[in-house]
Amino acid sequence: MKHDYLMNTPLDEAKALFFSALKELPFEAGEETIDTAAADGRILASAAYAAISAPHYNASAMDGIAVRAEDTYGASEREPLILPPDKYTVVDTGDPLPAGTDAVIMVEDVREEPEGNVRILAAASPWMNVRQVGEDLCMGDMIAPAGTVLTPPLLGALLAGGVTRVSVKKRPRFGIIPTGDEIVKPTGNPGAGEIIEFNSVIFSSMLRRWDADAVVYDIVKDKKDLLETAVRRACDETDAVLILAGSSAGRDDLTAGVVRDMGQLLLHGVAIKPGKPVVLGQIHNKPVLGLPGYPVSAMVVMEEFVRPMVDLYYKRQSAAPLVAEAVLTKRVVSSLKYKEFVRVSVGSIGGVNYAVPLPRGAGVITSVTKAHGILEVDQNREGVEAGSAVNIRMLGQPDNGSTLVITGSHDPLIDEVADEARKRGIGLSVVSSHVGSMGAIQAVKAGYAHMGGIHLLDEETGKYNESYVKKHFPDGGARIIKGVERIQGLMVRHGNPLGIREIADLKNCRYVNRQRGAGTRILFDYMLKQNGLQPSDINGYENEKFTHTAVAATVAAGNADAGMGILSAAKIYGLDFIPLYHEEYDFLVAESASDDPGVRAFFEILHSHELRRRLTELGGYRLLDE
Amino acid sequence: MKHDYLMNTPLDEAKALFFSALKELPFEAGEETIDTAAADGRILASAAYAAISAPHYNASAMDGIAVRAEDTYGASEREPLILPPDKYTVVDTGDPLPAGTDAVIMVEDVREEPEGNVRILAAASPWMNVRQVGEDLCMGDMIAPAGTVLTPPLLGALLAGGVTRVSVKKRPRFGIIPTGDEIVKPTGNPGAGEIIEFNSVIFSSMLRRWDADAVVYDIVKDKKDLLETAVRRACDETDAVLILAGSSAGRDDLTAGVVRDMGQLLLHGVAIKPGKPVVLGQIHNKPVLGLPGYPVSAMVVMEEFVRPMVDLYYKRQSAAPLVAEAVLTKRVVSSLKYKEFVRVSVGSIGGVNYAVPLPRGAGVITSVTKAHGILEVDQNREGVEAGSAVNIRMLGQPDNGSTLVITGSHDPLIDEVADEARKRGIGLSVVSSHVGSMGAIQAVKAGYAHMGGIHLLDEETGKYNESYVKKHFPDGGARIIKGVERIQGLMVRHGNPLGIREIADLKNCRYVNRQRGAGTRILFDYMLKQNGLQPSDINGYENEKFTHTAVAATVAAGNADAGMGILSAAKIYGLDFIPLYHEEYDFLVAESASDDPGVRAFFEILHSHELRRRLTELGGYRLLDE
Repeated sequence: MKHDYLMNTPLDEAKALFFSALKELPFEAGEETIDTAAADGRILASAAYAAISAPHYNASAMDGIAVRAEDTYGASEREPLILPPDKYTVVDTGDPLPAGTDAVIMVEDVREEPEGNVRILAAASPWMNVRQVGEDLCMGDMIAPAGTVLTPPLLGALLAGGVTRVSVKKRPRFGIIPTGDEIVKPTGNPGAGEIIEFNSVIFSSMLRRWDADAVVYDIVKDKKDLLETAVRRACDETDAVLILAGSSAGRDDLTAGVVRDMGQLLLHGVAIKPGKPVVLGQIHNKPVLGLPGYPVSAMVVMEEFVRPMVDLYYKRQSAAPLVAEAVLTKRVVSSLKYKEFVRVSVGSIGGVNYAVPLPRGAGVITSVTKAHGILEVDQNREGVEAGSAVNIRMLGQPDNGSTLVITGSHDPLIDEVADEARKRGIGLSVVSSHVGSMGAIQAVKAGYAHMGGIHLLDEETGKYNESYVKKHFPDGGARIIKGVERIQGLMVRHGNPLGIREIADLKNCRYVNRQRGAGTRILFDYMLKQNGLQPSDINGYENEKFTHTAVAATVAAGNADAGMGILSAAKIYGLDFIPLYHEEYDFLVAESASDDPGVRAFFEILHSHELRRRLTELGGYRLLDE
Repeated sequence: MKHDYLMNTPLDEAKALFFSALKELPFEAGEETIDTAAADGRILASAAYAAISAPHYNASAMDGIAVRAEDTYGASEREPLILPPDKYTVVDTGDPLPAGTDAVIMVEDVREEPEGNVRILAAASPWMNVRQVGEDLCMGDMIAPAGTVLTPPLLGALLAGGVTRVSVKKRPRFGIIPTGDEIVKPTGNPGAGEIIEFNSVIFSSMLRRWDADAVVYDIVKDKKDLLETAVRRACDETDAVLILAGSSAGRDDLTAGVVRDMGQLLLHGVAIKPGKPVVLGQIHNKPVLGLPGYPVSAMVVMEEFVRPMVDLYYKRQSAAPLVAEAVLTKRVVSSLKYKEFVRVSVGSIGGVNYAVPLPRGAGVITSVTKAHGILEVDQNREGVEAGSAVNIRMLGQPDNGSTLVITGSHDPLIDEVADEARKRGIGLSVVSSHVGSMGAIQAVKAGYAHMGGIHLLDEETGKYNESYVKKHFPDGGARIIKGVERIQGLMVRHGNPLGIREIADLKNCRYVNRQRGAGTRILFDYMLKQNGLQPSDINGYENEKFTHTAVAATVAAGNADAGMGILSAAKIYGLDFIPLYHEEYDFLVAESASDDPGVRAFFEILHSHELRRRLTELGGYRLLDE
């Protein structure tokens, strides 16, 4: 079983090597001439000069009469002047001045007289109320230099200057070759072992946002000759080639070998995480990059290598990153072997940004979709402590509305409220992290969250939540707002083939558990105790999932026979459900956030008719009134 | 001569009226279902839920062998375990786990043995190196709520979740009707009285940037029945209608009447400047707006009324304006009658932003193309003093490079250097204002500019610039860097029909002058004196232009017979040129800016071979070495 090793070149070194090689290639924008009207956002290849003046004739700036200023000298309110018809011409705004005239008197200052004469009450000075030739733009003036990104008003100025076609920089074309035996085109119904190929969609969309085009080729199987044929074609047809997956050093990783054999392999493996398995090289004078198959890794490589490639192609400065200061809510451990790119969600509370690290698996695309920014941890750092002030490279402008940070136990109703808020056009963005009920207490205490979902059973009283809040907030600082009653139970495969009826039956099956700190885990522990069972009696007690749906998915896939969770999750997966406990799922709200408009909007929506309807549809909920 | 009057409704009142009327109309986004792969930047109409889990099967996370964890218990380096062929399956990353297996041992930890056996050195725990079903995304999980703007990673997450088609909000379609008897389609060769119609290009490009579509109709002549027909059709075919020009109260201003007759006229005239003549109304339940014909006015109306319309249509929050603090370099006088929108260019010097007010004519589109931001002066303010700290609403992100602020006498070579800098990919943005040589001294003194062009003749010594700097900077603070020698002379029509040979000949013709403070004006005054002439001897002495090309354009148009300027301007316009004086055009550079990278880059380029070539092409220059 052959396996190769990757290099581990530091990022800066890898970039220096790659971009100096790139500068030797003919990888730079040519010119093309296009209609000015269609050139918004394009980049001028050469300076644009006005071909005509604007206005290109002397134009009346008013509705009125055009006159020769000389003919009006002496006119005043006390001594008005009468002009005969051959001494004036009626003009509208924009009309050319008739030959021999050099001023316009506006209509309000003109009185009609018999026989086509007019009376004027003031003298005109030369060029009064006239837009003279070139007032706006003179022929030969530079409208914009090379490299200017065209904007709507610039298109207007170009057209005003008679420039109906402009020379702009050609957009670079990237050839994208997805590879892999197991890869299939996007489908709603993939077979086992079929992996949906969505990277080409992500990367071509990223490229378009960077002013580049993408040509996506057919999926290539893991055969060297097939890949070589595809790469040869892409090098012919495009300006640069991205080979998706196969960039590591495993059995089916062909990219590095193909680049080495067909051209020049510059580098294989960069000391970044995620994103290590990257191939940098050139074939037939075209840059060729091998990107890892995991989307998160590949997106880092796109940002670090491909985006600056596009800037280099255009000879433009890279956009300044949008940096926000934030407090890190959780410790991030990092390896000295890599520069790490940690995705974080960012929520603002009382003017302070809090950055919550998201799951770091390279395959977890939702860690990108939920991310608001990136925390970079340098290669020589072992990590960053919780509570540290950090700089976050933001992935976009924040929404111009209030942000509601919800950290704690997750229930689908949070997503439904967020959705309903957006449907109503309320400017409310919900940033929610799933860290379990105990996580809610910690987050609200630390000030990292406005609120969080909790469902914590007090084993002594059999009541929910209150005693926990008393214990953890002895001096106040947070309060409970009632949420819902929901049914917890055991989820088992359809038809309940193992005949599971109660907790005791779990001894003979494979269980899937929730993570430590989750309210459902605490409830399960309580019920084990009530049934005289130990964790060690449960096969799979250590198999932890983070959400109700993840437990349901595990049971549905046959990876476990039973798991505890809420009815709505079981329903989605068509699982049988054995109800065990009516529990209270409430919200722990920081007192400082009680009047927050986001918090108020949240509960207003939670108690709305529409949300009641949605909860009924989800199943197993009863709304608790305050 | 009929003329109507406009209302002058304050902006806030006008907006309240218009947007509350708009909310009564069916002006809101419907839904449409499109391919997810093509949905970047679109806005989700409904929440998107994962249709399948990702991964949707248990996938090997490594190259290696799939095993049943139970079968490996006890294996260690000291006591390796031998697995026969029926107890393992070779798998690659991404392969589905064969039935009955629940862990993967990576290839590095497996040794091949005879007869297809393998030796393993460590036990596997259940689900080790396995991406379990739903690890990334669980069926039924909400991927994003309604109103989410789709991004490349979100497209990936949707496709990973089996969502190949998404329901997004329909884009609003705006019908644009250009009107006017004098209006023609963009051309490089318009006739006298023909105005190029470029507003529809500006506005449809603006709309596209705001996620809206535009349907541009044919130009409609100023006839009420023609306009009514066009409006009827646009109301049928689009979601909202913009009628360009004809929104005021003049003879040919038909929009208000058409809206009143066909539907409901809400408002005619808003107290803003520019932008006052705006028509707001509705016809057949569709919002209809009349926009002023002057592009600058209409752009203000687009920003203040049409952009928020699009946000309302989508029920989204308006983007937060990008605001920068700046020092105003020049006094802005404003009328109590209007809220004013003053376009400013913004340059940063030593970390301080300086905002330079640009010409305020509503027809001057270059005041928009040169603008970096807008200074809003409230209706109840009479103006803003020079030196005041002001908030500027920026029109875009600043370039990520150095800005070089050049204020003073203008010479085309400044534009050529700026162009060459962009061509070389140097991150240098030149912000230049044309305020004449004396303006350069004031700006550098006040700290508003890094440098400025000057060509100031000392009448006593006959030398250039030095004595002025000594006088105005007695204690230092600025120095001269040599620029070029250039030829000043008289520009006259081709063939010199009036036979002008020298200054004395100007007594019998129409002259066009430069503005007060311009070096060329000072030179002209000096030459008048040398020839024993007074300003009052010169017909047209008061006709002031701000640039060499503007003087040339005036002569070329026949608005004057002669003007003073540089050879390159005469060449562009095919004018005859009577050389009079070799003058020195230098740069006054603030001492604090001497080491500024932008300043250094400027002079490096000025002395480059390429710029020498360009100066030769322009004509009349000789580069002065330092």
